[in-house]
Amino acid sequence: MLMQQALLLPPDLKSWISYSDDCDFPIQNLPLGIYSKSGQSPRACSIIGNTLIDLFGLYKAGILKTAHLGLEDLEQETLNRLLAKGKSTLRNLRKDLSEILRRENESTYRSGCMPHLSELNSVTMCLPVKPPNYTDFYSSREHAYNVGVMFRDPLNALLPNWLHLPVGYHGRASSIVVSGTPVVRPKGQMQLKDGEAPEFGTSRQLDFELEMAFVIGKSNQLGHPISIKDAEDHIHGLLIFNDWSARDLQKWEYVPLGPFLGKNFASSISPWVVDLDALQVFKVSGPSPEKPLLEYLKSDKPSNYNIQLEVSITPENGEATIVSQSNMKYLYWSMAQQLAHHTVNGCNMEIGDICASGTISGPTPDSFGSMLELAWKGTKPIRLNDGSTRTFIQDGDSVTMHAYAQNEHYRIGFGQVNGTVIAAQ
Amino acid sequence: MLMQQALLLPPDLKSWISYSDDCDFPIQNLPLGIYSKSGQSPRACSIIGNTLIDLFGLYKAGILKTAHLGLEDLEQETLNRLLAKGKSTLRNLRKDLSEILRRENESTYRSGCMPHLSELNSVTMCLPVKPPNYTDFYSSREHAYNVGVMFRDPLNALLPNWLHLPVGYHGRASSIVVSGTPVVRPKGQMQLKDGEAPEFGTSRQLDFELEMAFVIGKSNQLGHPISIKDAEDHIHGLLIFNDWSARDLQKWEYVPLGPFLGKNFASSISPWVVDLDALQVFKVSGPSPEKPLLEYLKSDKPSNYNIQLEVSITPENGEATIVSQSNMKYLYWSMAQQLAHHTVNGCNMEIGDICASGTISGPTPDSFGSMLELAWKGTKPIRLNDGSTRTFIQDGDSVTMHAYAQNEHYRIGFGQVNGTVIAAQ
Repeated sequence: MLMQQALLLPPDLKSWISYSDDCDFPIQNLPLGIYSKSGQSPRACSIIGNTLIDLFGLYKAGILKTAHLGLEDLEQETLNRLLAKGKSTLRNLRKDLSEILRRENESTYRSGCMPHLSELNSVTMCLPVKPPNYTDFYSSREHAYNVGVMFRDPLNALLPNWLHLPVGYHGRASSIVVSGTPVVRPKGQMQLKDGEAPEFGTSRQLDFELEMAFVIGKSNQLGHPISIKDAEDHIHGLLIFNDWSARDLQKWEYVPLGPFLGKNFASSISPWVVDLDALQVFKVSGPSPEKPLLEYLKSDKPSNYNIQLEVSITPENGEATIVSQSNMKYLYWSMAQQLAHHTVNGCNMEIGDICASGTISGPTPDSFGSMLELAWKGTKPIRLNDGSTRTFIQDGDSVTMHAYAQNEHYRIGFGQVNGTVIAAQ
Repeated sequence: MLMQQALLLPPDLKSWISYSDDCDFPIQNLPLGIYSKSGQSPRACSIIGNTLIDLFGLYKAGILKTAHLGLEDLEQETLNRLLAKGKSTLRNLRKDLSEILRRENESTYRSGCMPHLSELNSVTMCLPVKPPNYTDFYSSREHAYNVGVMFRDPLNALLPNWLHLPVGYHGRASSIVVSGTPVVRPKGQMQLKDGEAPEFGTSRQLDFELEMAFVIGKSNQLGHPISIKDAEDHIHGLLIFNDWSARDLQKWEYVPLGPFLGKNFASSISPWVVDLDALQVFKVSGPSPEKPLLEYLKSDKPSNYNIQLEVSITPENGEATIVSQSNMKYLYWSMAQQLAHHTVNGCNMEIGDICASGTISGPTPDSFGSMLELAWKGTKPIRLNDGSTRTFIQDGDSVTMHAYAQNEHYRIGFGQVNGTVIAAQ
């Protein structure tokens, strides 16, 4: 049903705004974000190449005329109100924008558009959505297996429920920050030796988690589950998610009710929400289920996405080293399965809710999605280009994640999510 | 510091609105809520006896004149905007309201007030706050012990971290509903026998959890912890919280990341937020710590509250049976400790956030705060007044929780939180 309605912009579409072939934001992408610059309130925007497009400006100037939209939907601190307009209206918005930007229409629109275009590096990108709720899943088999091997039993690394349902838990929505926001190293309780009293101090095991997340664009009422076949109709788009984790705090606190202070000091997201429609051509089948699925988790259509993922660490004043290359297609549980499971008990999703995938680790050691796994619990330090080594993240390090889907015609990218760790205060 | 500033209304204060001595809402209480009635938008309100007071109406009529308030703060679907005005303004509001209602001022205010008073049962009470975030603690030693005995090891019932920190986890904010909202019995995965494949079905082990919760009235910035001495300055007030739980779903899903679908189908809260100031005279010392506390959790002042709690079950068309009587004073970890711990890593609280205590069980079997404990995992069915028995909650049952603090002068009550379970759909 979604596939019939999805807005697929033709691969040969070109724009009168130039960009390189390998850029994240061709005319086939047109993601949504929020930007600000001095002297004006935050506004909804899109991007093509390195050029930011002020949607409020285009609408106010009468160039963008999408029905069922109002100026007030585009002059907001977050996209939540715009997302509430629904897929149909937002598809029209993306279609209208592609018409304005396509090469054939340069003479009609170029001069009118110019006042509403900015270089990306001349503006500030804001938190794109203010999530009413945030859920984190644990959907990579490789990640769950690695953690199980390290902390439990190699022979029974996966817990009994893992192959039967997409394990997930509620995260903290308030501390989700946009790419570029510094991350303060957290303090807290940790038990340095088994059996001894805990100490209070600064986390020594600060880690990233490479995740992708979906943003809810359509709510459901409490008591009314979303079926797996309808799931993608409730997802507006995707973003990159870095689930910062303090392993020493987490290890001491997490039994029996799950991660808390080891996670809720910060989670960083990319500033762009890439429309699920733009990713339809990158759909692939996920791993085959190893156990029979209950009916509500079954789907006969490909529901994973082939999105390449990359993590780099940049020491203070240093150069970047790529430490992980993974892919969203490795996820054992798809987003559709996650959402069907999340709501099967009647739980209600709200517009702007963020559901993250959990760490996306691939099958090989260089595709693991966290330092915990890459440096294998501190036993295999990672060497950076400057010769230094890391088992976890140091003060001054920047962690950058990049994600993109690529075919022979174009790349649909997410830009990046970046965060620099600063010393505990 | 808080104690100096707290607004303590004198015990001998009387109102020109009459109420019985044992009512929950004397003039010394004056909690906040949101109500609606046909033909008008939701408004902030308070209550005295059984009489609801429309604060928007009083303000618009020029009777209530609290500084730094606007009409728009009082005509809202939730209290969040009013709470953002801060303790100082809300103390003035409560003081001004008590002046208008005190017996000595009847001739001045009575006729002006009359159009803005309603019988409680003639209006609809709404969800008082829309929490941006919801956290559930696990702060009753008796409850944690009981659960540990039932599901783990009687000799090591408390996990190693429990006596060192207030264990907590993030809950689902979207499914918090106001008292009176029906609760649909959830469906989901459960494992009926160890080692066997899970089944999908209707929960057979639907339970309540007797909890109290605090509502955040003052935010903190990300990276800036709230110290234990400042904690109560960030708490506006308290409400009753029923953390509905589907034990069979919870048991199968909760390892290793905590409760999820077993909890997030519904949590019910009372419609009134009782001001922390009104509860100051009911402060008592909590249990003595059994392990040395880390510095950030230490307080030299009494920080528990002597609030009596009661749970009853009413079968469809039947009469109520009280099944539990407990007290908030039993909590091992105080609200101040909970909040200091929650933010010690820099986690930011937002105005309207709800933090619940976890099930408040007392020392005796008739004071346990859940059916799981009262009927001891189904082995000791509870007998109701009509002769029927319960191990968990049945379709058609209403669960009602009542909470109040009582001294020789008056009772500061919370009203009740009620929810009727309806069959899975």
